[in-house]
Amino acid sequence: MRYVLGVDIGGTNLVVGTVAEDGSELVAAASEPTQSEAGAADVLDRLVGLAERAIAETRRQRPGAEILGVGVGAPGPLDTRLGVVLLTPNLGWVNLPLRQIIRDRLGLPAALDNDANCAVLGEWWVGAARGARNAIGITIGTGIGGGLILNGALYHGASDVAGEIGHTTIDTEGRRCKCGNYGCLEAYASGPNIALRALEEIEAGAVSRLPALVRGDLSMITAQTVYQAAADGDDLALEVVNDTAKFLGVGIGNLLNVFNPEVVVVCGGVTLAGDHLFVPLQREVARRAFKPAVAACRIVPGALEGTAGVYGAAKVFLDQTAASA
Amino acid sequence: MRYVLGVDIGGTNLVVGTVAEDGSELVAAASEPTQSEAGAADVLDRLVGLAERAIAETRRQRPGAEILGVGVGAPGPLDTRLGVVLLTPNLGWVNLPLRQIIRDRLGLPAALDNDANCAVLGEWWVGAARGARNAIGITIGTGIGGGLILNGALYHGASDVAGEIGHTTIDTEGRRCKCGNYGCLEAYASGPNIALRALEEIEAGAVSRLPALVRGDLSMITAQTVYQAAADGDDLALEVVNDTAKFLGVGIGNLLNVFNPEVVVVCGGVTLAGDHLFVPLQREVARRAFKPAVAACRIVPGALEGTAGVYGAAKVFLDQTAASA
Repeated sequence: MRYVLGVDIGGTNLVVGTVAEDGSELVAAASEPTQSEAGAADVLDRLVGLAERAIAETRRQRPGAEILGVGVGAPGPLDTRLGVVLLTPNLGWVNLPLRQIIRDRLGLPAALDNDANCAVLGEWWVGAARGARNAIGITIGTGIGGGLILNGALYHGASDVAGEIGHTTIDTEGRRCKCGNYGCLEAYASGPNIALRALEEIEAGAVSRLPALVRGDLSMITAQTVYQAAADGDDLALEVVNDTAKFLGVGIGNLLNVFNPEVVVVCGGVTLAGDHLFVPLQREVARRAFKPAVAACRIVPGALEGTAGVYGAAKVFLDQTAASA
Repeated sequence: MRYVLGVDIGGTNLVVGTVAEDGSELVAAASEPTQSEAGAADVLDRLVGLAERAIAETRRQRPGAEILGVGVGAPGPLDTRLGVVLLTPNLGWVNLPLRQIIRDRLGLPAALDNDANCAVLGEWWVGAARGARNAIGITIGTGIGGGLILNGALYHGASDVAGEIGHTTIDTEGRRCKCGNYGCLEAYASGPNIALRALEEIEAGAVSRLPALVRGDLSMITAQTVYQAAADGDDLALEVVNDTAKFLGVGIGNLLNVFNPEVVVVCGGVTLAGDHLFVPLQREVARRAFKPAVAACRIVPGALEGTAGVYGAAKVFLDQTAASA
């Protein structure tokens, strides 16, 4: 059997694993904290070490396995044609020729794409969007990213910017976003902004169990805390989750009217809120988008929590290799 | 030389013409008012007559011309696979098998697509978006429609709904749209809504030459009147055009962040406002969208005013024929 190493470089974790060429199995998956504060060179060194150990472990578990190459998912913006990471504020990488570095240090051919694109491609290849001709993925974490599968292939646009769903305006004069714009979807529905909206309500006097959950230190409220409180029936937390669903419903409704996909996959911790999120989200989409677009589309949580990016990175390698063959 | 008849069924005008297979010329172009109030059967009869005269005129002007078939652009929603118009409120057509009717009555093979898709395809084939790999067209008239050229082909989505740019939300709690939703781009920037915003300002006491332009009958204010007053330097009209540019800039900025196209073509009467529209529009897009997406993209007026839909309908025939061959 032939395998591809998938590497997912996240702001929080580095994740690697070896994926069978047909997507049927993930071997030797491993992860460690990114610890970006240790510096760019240190992150790269540890990433290469993690990758080498995964390759060795794969050869141990699957004797005779052929490792075809390495696919890497990295935070953008990127130049996928040149294999260069243009800028990652969190990691301190500027114009880093990551594809070549990985190729040289691991001695294997390599391919590079955006982390959100990899996550969506992974979900499309072996996860929740499998079999769809047109699929959209939206990844919700510290930011909101996304990726588009159109006519059965990852869509990059003219300069690898496509899929920046988090930075579509849903409210022209709305909340300030860290991108500098106003009213971006991300300014409402990213993890930190979910926590911030709860905090604002508490500071405005709303009654909630959230302060008790963080022992009075309001700075410790995170999106996870909000989901936990919502699961426990806290009214404020439920309201925050419900509002999050509506904001996501506006953004996803827009995507349905423009792309008319078969499936929208929502990835990230926000899916932990379960029906508290998905029921009002689907209601808002149905209210906003055209009926034939709503009828054509499933809106589902990701099925590969934690490994979608690794599967997708491996698939990126396979696709780029096939395209250049 | 081989030709294809293009037919553009608009709410205001029926337009036909014969297009050379390579897009190099349009022969025997003709149009007449749609007069939808005369009834569905009457519109169809006159459309067939107009088409027959265009074919005869083509044979007269280009002796020996071979007419390969007919492409038809019709208001949606459609089922392009079945060739059926599902519903056109303006024309009173419901589940009309238009492709087969045209084929039977003209005795030529036929193809069908959405009118906005045809306009965008025409601009991409021989007009303002020529040569782009990824292009978006936005058609502004009584409504706002759109179409997407992705990876060099018209993109339809799962059920022919793709491209409904006018019904993307730019303001979650915004103006009521005739689709029933709130805050759609169309509710701000369609022709009737441009006129309506001017009217609202006048009724609220704004000073303007617009009432004089319509001899005091405020119900006669149209988007065209607003552009004319803006060209004459009327402050209110200039403000309405400037606001229109900002609303369009929000919607188009969203498209840049999601699609990252090489070109956005703006079609329709609104382009008559010229720099009064395009300068603030491009400023708003630059403020909202990511720099690499802005840098990659031209935003331009359509180059085929009045005939884009005919060219595009002919191209739809050629593409559908090639795809099924």
